[in-house]
Amino acid sequence: MSDTLREVTLEDLDAIEIGAAILGTGGGGNPYIGKLRCREELRKGRKIPVIPLNELPDDALVVSLGGIGAPVVGVEKIEEGEECLRALRAVEQEVGKKVDALISAEIGGANSMEPMLTAAQAGLPVVDGDGMGRAFPEMQMITWSIYGQRSTPAAMADEKGNIVVFRETPNDKWVEDLARASVVVMGAAAGLAQAPMRGEFVKRAAIPGTVTQAYNLGRAVLDANRDHRDPVQAVIDHEGGRLLMTAKIVDLERHLKGGFAVGHLSLEGYGAFAGDSGKINLQNEFLIFARNEVVEVCVPDLIVVLDADTGHPITTEMLRYGQRIAVLGLPCHALLRTPEALAVVGPAAFGYPEVEFVPMAAKGDAK
Amino acid sequence: MSDTLREVTLEDLDAIEIGAAILGTGGGGNPYIGKLRCREELRKGRKIPVIPLNELPDDALVVSLGGIGAPVVGVEKIEEGEECLRALRAVEQEVGKKVDALISAEIGGANSMEPMLTAAQAGLPVVDGDGMGRAFPEMQMITWSIYGQRSTPAAMADEKGNIVVFRETPNDKWVEDLARASVVVMGAAAGLAQAPMRGEFVKRAAIPGTVTQAYNLGRAVLDANRDHRDPVQAVIDHEGGRLLMTAKIVDLERHLKGGFAVGHLSLEGYGAFAGDSGKINLQNEFLIFARNEVVEVCVPDLIVVLDADTGHPITTEMLRYGQRIAVLGLPCHALLRTPEALAVVGPAAFGYPEVEFVPMAAKGDAK
Repeated sequence: MSDTLREVTLEDLDAIEIGAAILGTGGGGNPYIGKLRCREELRKGRKIPVIPLNELPDDALVVSLGGIGAPVVGVEKIEEGEECLRALRAVEQEVGKKVDALISAEIGGANSMEPMLTAAQAGLPVVDGDGMGRAFPEMQMITWSIYGQRSTPAAMADEKGNIVVFRETPNDKWVEDLARASVVVMGAAAGLAQAPMRGEFVKRAAIPGTVTQAYNLGRAVLDANRDHRDPVQAVIDHEGGRLLMTAKIVDLERHLKGGFAVGHLSLEGYGAFAGDSGKINLQNEFLIFARNEVVEVCVPDLIVVLDADTGHPITTEMLRYGQRIAVLGLPCHALLRTPEALAVVGPAAFGYPEVEFVPMAAKGDAK
Repeated sequence: MSDTLREVTLEDLDAIEIGAAILGTGGGGNPYIGKLRCREELRKGRKIPVIPLNELPDDALVVSLGGIGAPVVGVEKIEEGEECLRALRAVEQEVGKKVDALISAEIGGANSMEPMLTAAQAGLPVVDGDGMGRAFPEMQMITWSIYGQRSTPAAMADEKGNIVVFRETPNDKWVEDLARASVVVMGAAAGLAQAPMRGEFVKRAAIPGTVTQAYNLGRAVLDANRDHRDPVQAVIDHEGGRLLMTAKIVDLERHLKGGFAVGHLSLEGYGAFAGDSGKINLQNEFLIFARNEVVEVCVPDLIVVLDADTGHPITTEMLRYGQRIAVLGLPCHALLRTPEALAVVGPAAFGYPEVEFVPMAAKGDAK
């Protein structure tokens, strides 16, 4: 365990991969390829320094990085490896300044690795924090936008040499829509750099310490496995969460809609949860968990699905009929629970205006 | 008639509208709204100076302008009016220089008016020429691309305040694809500025004198109508073309495919052409004319459909079953007939590899 990660080394990558995948809440893309690329960079002698949020100078220029695309494609279409670096350079050209530090748009899933990879390539530090504290399906669902920083100028780059700049838009939803349309043309995977921010703002708006959190969470799972302890319990203990259900998947409906994996899964409880039925709605990420048709946990709190035996996180595209899973609820960070945040990442923003968000934290869970 | 238009005045707009619509070969969008906007600017006392191609300084910076979108939408979704101006400013920011003159991407249809409107707004001259000498459905079908000038950096702006910059792409087809995807998000109409060029290149690559040509062609139609002469013959005489058929539309298949109006119309000749059958294939513009199943005229030569009685050009979205039309073939400019040009705007580029382009000019028509 580490209080504050100061540098990401070769030995840390596996733990960050696992922790980031769990925080991906079923989406966010697979961090595996990114991990391999980071490993390659570190083996070349390059470094990934991590700068704690409170040590970031107020006038530092920070850019938010991440890949964009359908998660399904990320597995099949491997990036060339410098997409985010080229997108970063394009944003630097827009603002006419060199960037001082990088930050992950989204710690959950593949975008945990993208800024670390670019950091190694560009010789820059990554900030210990991110803009989501988990994964969300749309770009404007990010604390930069929520707390007043515009995404523009933003830039997208693909492996073929395309560079598209979103210089001005009426609001950040337009950046999402325009970037989404461009990424389909580019072949459904690209690097995106956005929201050039002052350090002072990042300190207020970033979900703090999430690189360290991903590392420690992954470390807890690895240690539990090594010591033959229950990895599911290790996740719950680390995050102050709650086991919602051990269950079998008895129905699964999932289709691609507007570039997103949308659908739901129906669950039949077993063990301590025998007799319970469950349902999880998803849009790339798991959004809402209901027990016996009553909503119990919903976005922005985290719904995590783990393989009941191995404790490995299961992403939405890996769901299978008959799988035995453990469903966990983990409380989200306080920055995602404010009225401004709930307007953007609460259940209504996902098309569930009838669902009221009752924070897990208010029910006595940690955070 | 004018040898070389030196300025577009209020009195010239109607003629340019008609000439440009004829050169639109069924597509290119309706120049009507653009004409009204130009009129408004001229009434405010603003000017639209025209600079002949041979007077353009070699080191002048010229930008190509036009609207982009589905022609059907152009009629229904009226632009705010400064889309092209904002796109122009975005390209100026990209190259770090002020532009000296504007040129139409496409003289056929609505894009005849866009650069004139922006010229009045920005206090710049328009060059007497364009990049197509007619209308074509895709952006890379332009002499700038054909003769070696890249479209990038290009910029798109809509009426809502979105500005997207295409900074780098592997080739100009990517600009077309990315711009097409963006314009769908923007609501299917936007202004596009592209291909910042040196005057020296424009003098070599532009189809020369097409603003004057559109004016004179429209003037010829207006004069024929006024003098009760045949307007169809006036078009043929002015352009050195040929009457292909007077006919009734007996079948019409037209659908939207990838943002384009695609289809064909079947014709039954009458008058001197009684007994002949005809077919015209289209993609926004009329592409191929066949008589009795033998191709007679095809892109890049111009196939123009006029109302048989009034001589008014009929655009693809205005085609109706039972209409009586005059089909004309007009020879394209020599710059569209080179091997480099035919690779991009010949019949194979539109999905007709089996059609051989035999220039009308080679058959004894003018140009």
